[in-house]
Amino acid sequence: MKINMYIIGHKNPDTDAIVCALIAADYFTQLGMEVTPIRLGELNKETEFILKHLGIQAPELKTELEQDAKICLVDHNEKSQSIDELEKYQIEWIIDHHKFSLNTATPLNIRAESLASTASVLYKMYIENDLEISKKIAKLMICGILSDTLYFRSPTTTTIDKQIALALNEIAGFEDLEAFSLQMFDAKSDLSDFSAREIVTLDYKPFEFNGKKVNIGVMETTNPKFALDIKSDILEAMKQEKLEQGLDGILFVAVDILNEKGTAFTLDEFEINMIESAFDSKKLEDNLFDIGSVVSRKKQIVPKLESYFA
Amino acid sequence: MKINMYIIGHKNPDTDAIVCALIAADYFTQLGMEVTPIRLGELNKETEFILKHLGIQAPELKTELEQDAKICLVDHNEKSQSIDELEKYQIEWIIDHHKFSLNTATPLNIRAESLASTASVLYKMYIENDLEISKKIAKLMICGILSDTLYFRSPTTTTIDKQIALALNEIAGFEDLEAFSLQMFDAKSDLSDFSAREIVTLDYKPFEFNGKKVNIGVMETTNPKFALDIKSDILEAMKQEKLEQGLDGILFVAVDILNEKGTAFTLDEFEINMIESAFDSKKLEDNLFDIGSVVSRKKQIVPKLESYFA
Repeated sequence: MKINMYIIGHKNPDTDAIVCALIAADYFTQLGMEVTPIRLGELNKETEFILKHLGIQAPELKTELEQDAKICLVDHNEKSQSIDELEKYQIEWIIDHHKFSLNTATPLNIRAESLASTASVLYKMYIENDLEISKKIAKLMICGILSDTLYFRSPTTTTIDKQIALALNEIAGFEDLEAFSLQMFDAKSDLSDFSAREIVTLDYKPFEFNGKKVNIGVMETTNPKFALDIKSDILEAMKQEKLEQGLDGILFVAVDILNEKGTAFTLDEFEINMIESAFDSKKLEDNLFDIGSVVSRKKQIVPKLESYFA
Repeated sequence: MKINMYIIGHKNPDTDAIVCALIAADYFTQLGMEVTPIRLGELNKETEFILKHLGIQAPELKTELEQDAKICLVDHNEKSQSIDELEKYQIEWIIDHHKFSLNTATPLNIRAESLASTASVLYKMYIENDLEISKKIAKLMICGILSDTLYFRSPTTTTIDKQIALALNEIAGFEDLEAFSLQMFDAKSDLSDFSAREIVTLDYKPFEFNGKKVNIGVMETTNPKFALDIKSDILEAMKQEKLEQGLDGILFVAVDILNEKGTAFTLDEFEINMIESAFDSKKLEDNLFDIGSVVSRKKQIVPKLESYFA
């Protein structure tokens, strides 16, 4: 069985997208397939810290493949979040944990669960197929779970994710998971090198709600003051993004990981109406809303916008 | 864990839709959930024969559920093929083997594989979860596989489906699978009670190809002459369906199971252009085309129409 398949995480890759491309590559290799993990963009600082700490190389950056290449999407399923010209390729597999928005011409393999991290879904697939989880893979899986759950703080966290992380640590042997997660989050929070535009688009996903194109950037940080201090630069960057991408709306949310609260940056009337109607929000100052204990784009932001635009 | 979830096969249920609702009910019950299998329409004669032969009761007919009911879709994933007002319910699970066309507001559990039958997908889930496959469940699984593969004749058949059917027969103990499948197909082919309208819509699914609404009916039969003899009645029934359902196109294909060939009934210019462009077809007489060894809607008809309308 010689199947050359590329394993692809989403654009603006976060830690889960990167580690799951590496994990899925090991998974399919153990099943006897020839596969190549790739990434669609630069690593964020958290992922950079993790891979450096673990001594593991990042998947190759590759934003175009040969026509009709076989692909496996990990950690996403929407065309807009995937490789450009997705229709040129054959989607063979999807492994994910997000809401679904997908049209295919032929049947394919999908494994999706509403767990906190794609790494948790992959863990179950290893167990079901009786595959070996090496120390390296166990570490990558834990990092995916810690990153997506914000060390089990996010409301996306299930008891299963926690059990999986603890079971994996029997193999991985991290001495103190919480301390390690703090190092990850601190690495991610160091945005001193970045322009406001880069900050807005660092963890950034496009959505379509009932025909409206809305992009949502999230900054998960242990230092939310950083974003508030450069508010006018962030608003300017959002304005440019909205214009250049032809968006109906744009939202940027600074998530205070340690205190579990979200602050939303809104641009114009469109975003202000959206935030005021969709969330029980408190206006802090012009273009800035306290949206309470909102830390998860997937569980707390996107479903509310789905309802708002329905 | 007391979760009340309904398990739903598609509209115009075929054998796989019915047996998989029953199988999935057993699966989730073994996992400790409270579930109820239902069906959205009358049994076809094949399914009726099978359930009577096995002494198993059909799922309850139920076309409306309480608001916000939890549901599991088996053997389909498209809104148009599912329960009316699907948006009123919470899709918790999808177990399927078709092309995907789905939008959800929140993450969910999906298990899809490009195997020939949803019963094969469910078999793998039993094995992975180390659940017991009773004699009754093994028989239902085999019937799902035999029906969807037309006794391993359909090009959707994989070596995995065959292996699964043979492994299951160690439990089920059918003496002669091929002879039993012939009884199934003969039962399905007895259409003497049905009107032309009922024949067109017996195994009938709506599709949307690039905005065009096209319904496709398939008659799998050991006696294709039956349909050819009532051609004018079938065309009249197709005309009524197209008008009443506001369709862009309608297609009816008589599939000769034993000789593995398809005969397409076309209504007007729209369907004739579609059949002539999408298939290497031979006109037999007005509104009737020999489309060669086409037996599978999923693998041989729908993908070609996807390409034609793309």
